[in-house]
Amino acid sequence: MIDFGNFYQQIATGPLASWLEVIPAQLAQWQRENLHGHFRQWHKAIQYLPALTPTTLDLVERVYAEHPDLTPRQRQGIESLLRQLMPWRKGPYYLYGTHIDTEWRSDWKWDRVLPHISPLKDRLVLDVGCGSGYHMWRMIGQGAKMVVGIDPMQLFLCQFEAVRKLLGNSQQAHLLPLGIEQLPTSEAFDTVFSMGVLYHRRSPLDHLMQLKNQLVNGGELVLETLVTDGDEHQVLVPGERYAQMRNVYFLPSALALKSWLEKTGFVDVRIVDQAVTPVTEQRRTSWMTSESLAEFLDPENPELTVEGYHAPLRAVLIARKPGEVV
Amino acid sequence: MIDFGNFYQQIATGPLASWLEVIPAQLAQWQRENLHGHFRQWHKAIQYLPALTPTTLDLVERVYAEHPDLTPRQRQGIESLLRQLMPWRKGPYYLYGTHIDTEWRSDWKWDRVLPHISPLKDRLVLDVGCGSGYHMWRMIGQGAKMVVGIDPMQLFLCQFEAVRKLLGNSQQAHLLPLGIEQLPTSEAFDTVFSMGVLYHRRSPLDHLMQLKNQLVNGGELVLETLVTDGDEHQVLVPGERYAQMRNVYFLPSALALKSWLEKTGFVDVRIVDQAVTPVTEQRRTSWMTSESLAEFLDPENPELTVEGYHAPLRAVLIARKPGEVV
Amino acid sequence: MIDFGNFYQQIATGPLASWLEVIPAQLAQWQRENLHGHFRQWHKAIQYLPALTPTTLDLVERVYAEHPDLTPRQRQGIESLLRQLMPWRKGPYYLYGTHIDTEWRSDWKWDRVLPHISPLKDRLVLDVGCGSGYHMWRMIGQGAKMVVGIDPMQLFLCQFEAVRKLLGNSQQAHLLPLGIEQLPTSEAFDTVFSMGVLYHRRSPLDHLMQLKNQLVNGGELVLETLVTDGDEHQVLVPGERYAQMRNVYFLPSALALKSWLEKTGFVDVRIVDQAVTPVTEQRRTSWMTSESLAEFLDPENPELTVEGYHAPLRAVLIARKPGEVV
Amino acid sequence: MIDFGNFYQQIATGPLASWLEVIPAQLAQWQRENLHGHFRQWHKAIQYLPALTPTTLDLVERVYAEHPDLTPRQRQGIESLLRQLMPWRKGPYYLYGTHIDTEWRSDWKWDRVLPHISPLKDRLVLDVGCGSGYHMWRMIGQGAKMVVGIDPMQLFLCQFEAVRKLLGNSQQAHLLPLGIEQLPTSEAFDTVFSMGVLYHRRSPLDHLMQLKNQLVNGGELVLETLVTDGDEHQVLVPGERYAQMRNVYFLPSALALKSWLEKTGFVDVRIVDQAVTPVTEQRRTSWMTSESLAEFLDPENPELTVEGYHAPLRAVLIARKPGEVV
Repeated sequence: MIDFGNFYQQIATGPLASWLEVIPAQLAQWQRENLHGHFRQWHKAIQYLPALTPTTLDLVERVYAEHPDLTPRQRQGIESLLRQLMPWRKGPYYLYGTHIDTEWRSDWKWDRVLPHISPLKDRLVLDVGCGSGYHMWRMIGQGAKMVVGIDPMQLFLCQFEAVRKLLGNSQQAHLLPLGIEQLPTSEAFDTVFSMGVLYHRRSPLDHLMQLKNQLVNGGELVLETLVTDGDEHQVLVPGERYAQMRNVYFLPSALALKSWLEKTGFVDVRIVDQAVTPVTEQRRTSWMTSESLAEFLDPENPELTVEGYHAPLRAVLIARKPGEVV
Repeated sequence: MIDFGNFYQQIATGPLASWLEVIPAQLAQWQRENLHGHFRQWHKAIQYLPALTPTTLDLVERVYAEHPDLTPRQRQGIESLLRQLMPWRKGPYYLYGTHIDTEWRSDWKWDRVLPHISPLKDRLVLDVGCGSGYHMWRMIGQGAKMVVGIDPMQLFLCQFEAVRKLLGNSQQAHLLPLGIEQLPTSEAFDTVFSMGVLYHRRSPLDHLMQLKNQLVNGGELVLETLVTDGDEHQVLVPGERYAQMRNVYFLPSALALKSWLEKTGFVDVRIVDQAVTPVTEQRRTSWMTSESLAEFLDPENPELTVEGYHAPLRAVLIARKPGEVV
Repeated sequence: MIDFGNFYQQIATGPLASWLEVIPAQLAQWQRENLHGHFRQWHKAIQYLPALTPTTLDLVERVYAEHPDLTPRQRQGIESLLRQLMPWRKGPYYLYGTHIDTEWRSDWKWDRVLPHISPLKDRLVLDVGCGSGYHMWRMIGQGAKMVVGIDPMQLFLCQFEAVRKLLGNSQQAHLLPLGIEQLPTSEAFDTVFSMGVLYHRRSPLDHLMQLKNQLVNGGELVLETLVTDGDEHQVLVPGERYAQMRNVYFLPSALALKSWLEKTGFVDVRIVDQAVTPVTEQRRTSWMTSESLAEFLDPENPELTVEGYHAPLRAVLIARKPGEVV
Repeated sequence: MIDFGNFYQQIATGPLASWLEVIPAQLAQWQRENLHGHFRQWHKAIQYLPALTPTTLDLVERVYAEHPDLTPRQRQGIESLLRQLMPWRKGPYYLYGTHIDTEWRSDWKWDRVLPHISPLKDRLVLDVGCGSGYHMWRMIGQGAKMVVGIDPMQLFLCQFEAVRKLLGNSQQAHLLPLGIEQLPTSEAFDTVFSMGVLYHRRSPLDHLMQLKNQLVNGGELVLETLVTDGDEHQVLVPGERYAQMRNVYFLPSALALKSWLEKTGFVDVRIVDQAVTPVTEQRRTSWMTSESLAEFLDPENPELTVEGYHAPLRAVLIARKPGEVV
């Protein structure tokens, strides 16, 4: 029901052309066999949204769109349809008067990352684990030529398509509901982002290899993940849960992660940021009404998770694939 | 080495979009594993040909291109490169002074077929067993929107790409080196041609089914094949060879073929032409120097093949897939 | 639920060993995905049948099993379970007092075929389109080393397994619910039977090729099918139905069929029998209560089918694959 | 050229039956496409070896076979053929007077492991990374019902087949040239060994999962691997090489490995042995003439590898898959 034809058309003659050998078959199979139970309903919400071309659009400072002709009733209709796509985790979005106040202040993460990366102007960008695509729009705001986001969560695809429709149906950003292990090696992207993914991977070294395989020679990796304190031999592998999440595997120290990147063949590895996530950055809102970070921490000691591990600590590392800088 | 990206780009958003699920993978595998031993050399001939935009182009009465600025030396170079793609079977072509005098007068066949078919204006056309693509250009000449030809012979692909380059690199015609059994069912074509193919198929009924599966409802089939004389129960299945060809299976009478078409679900079946192939229509030339029809007939009695069967007799049938006429 | 392990064990080290590369995967997929809606119920009937070793067993003159210790109540139970596997088309079977009076007198066909074939003693035999396996037991009765039957109809598999259980669980006969196009080429069988199959195949030449590919060099093909009268160029392709059957394609004359066999590469082709099927050979019984041959013929003229074609005429041909006679 | 038919026959009706759906196809493809360049030559050495049934056989204390009738010349022939399968890494073997003095004293490792494991009597055993199969024979010596070893190195398969031939062609042990990721989940083995494998895996958690998926409920895992010193958060991921090996990934502390096993769902995890590998246990011999452990250590300080990491330290852990103890 989601039509990827425009994406295929765009990549048919460029560096991602070989993806046509694999991805249309995968996505067709997904649409036939693995649609989420609520997908039809989400899809209807997208269809009912108006196709708007904003008169004011800001993707540089935030994700903001406005059009003066909309009536209050139309604005209410938009908000109501967007609420059918709840919970909204990554944002915030400001769309025709609706402020989607998401669980995460993804804009804060962007502000921490942006100063350290190579300018995105005219670059082909891959965003692995892109969620609803918030950062993808910010990348477009920085002048990226095209951004491909991947995330297997189907609600995120629907949120992305809803936002895209409201932002004037830009064809510069495309979200594919795939995991990175399903992407054919492309060696095509100038910058690859992997933010908030590595600690969910049972095999972190394979993840780093897969990221490298998507980069052109000389391309840049931006890696953000949960880490632990300590020297390069410190690695926390939590038990059944970490901050209530079940699928958390390896939390290396930032130094250990640096050495893993080097072992995988990256060069110029830099740790550019490390910070404890504040409860103001990830919290319950009217757009995500379940438990959030505050509930995942020890009520007696917010420096610990409910399981007794240290509270979430995140690092950003930048690395380069060998080759001439792009 | 042949780039099908332009074709993929064209079909990505139309009725052939689902072909992207299968065909890029097939053609990539073909290019990796099954290239003909001479392919590289043929490909080089194409690369050395100049990319020309003719000032005079005729696809209506013949396949003719001219450009007054070409020097005699350049014209000689073109002929010499085209001769590297010998033998040329289907034509003739008139390209910048070079007359490719092919084994077959395919233009005569076209003249027999054209008066009986629905106008091709704006139609999506499939030409099964298209050879070097001669009829494809004539179909473009009749106003077809796009013509897809298929033929597994790789020399034909190279001849086609050479002609395309000399005709201004039109993207309205595309040749895929595939057999019809490799095409996913599309139900997308307004007209499907199968000329000179059915008698080479071990399973003629499957061939008719495959042709039907490519047609839109109401679409038109143009079927030309070798036939035998007689009533609707007459079917000649020759022994090891027929007119020296090894892979000849079923030669039904035109009436038997009509009933096979009806059994397969076609309607409005008409036998519009039946004729013995004269030796002037298929003959040895300086562009195809091996034996041709004259050598395949009994020297004592040209009404018989060397094997003692009746000489080649061809019929043209027109049929329609049920549904509103397109 | 049907366990093919004994079959796999038997073929693991012999000439059919390479089938293990394909068939276990196929049959497992079939059991997972394509079980008939009534399969569970049929399977239960098999399970409730007693595992019997007959004290008297005749597979030479008929398929007959007896055991003097069975009580009338036990005998009644057997009949009742066998009736749960109705309709029974191929037989008859005489099992512990129950006479399964099948639609077809398959024993009459056997009597027509047996005098003409090479002795089956110690031969590896394939029976394509074996139905409930009636002829397979008669082949065992002639001393065949092992008989593999294939038939995609799942009720036939259940009937076969029921009979096998009542005949002492012989492992000399195995029925696989597959079509011949699913069998890997084996070149392993000394004799291949195809009786009552060819006229159901859209591509008769492919069928002959597939049969040939299962034979050892010098092996024997026994081919029985519906035919038409006339010379070697007579082929009847009926319209939508023939004798009420929808899936009838090619009815060649026996002479045409002989020439098709020769074209396919068989030698020593003999037409050994040709006969109109009498209504006493195929008829409604208490074990097959639907319409049968009598209803498929023109009530005014039993020489014609209800569609106006000639009444069913069958021929038996014997042919040999080139090579030293086995 | 290696015939796995006997193995298939053995598993056709037991708990490994479902492997027939996958493994014969895999191994056939391997034999067609991926044979090692020297395979033919190794295979010839096996064929030239005599098929012997030893009069004295010891698999309990060592791997020893003897037959008094062999002439000195025959014994010399055996040794000469076995030397064609050099280098021999895992052993030692004593076969008809030939002492295969392998690089590794695998018997020492066995002596460290054996006291801690559940008795192997009548158990179905999987040995992952089995090398030439030395421990497999010792497992048979302990009464295992059947032992399946897997190792993708083709020389090991040839060494195993050579030894098997000399030990009387036992069908209780089978080596498949596959990696564990190619084995279908079986949940069939009573004991699974993984010795000397985990540190070669880019994804150790996936390796533990795969091992668990081969065990019956309540079954036992015997895990031996390189470790590092320290608490449960200590993990050494060496750079390009460790002790000259390129493909070394995770060296957790024994305590970290214990917690990984628990995270993977194993219970009753015990660290039963931990020891530095002495240079007498892994060394150059006349049967393995390349560099060995002594050369991989710092000549100045044998407590360090040439790269400056601590010298190889190995631990043995025993764990159980939840369920009733088998």
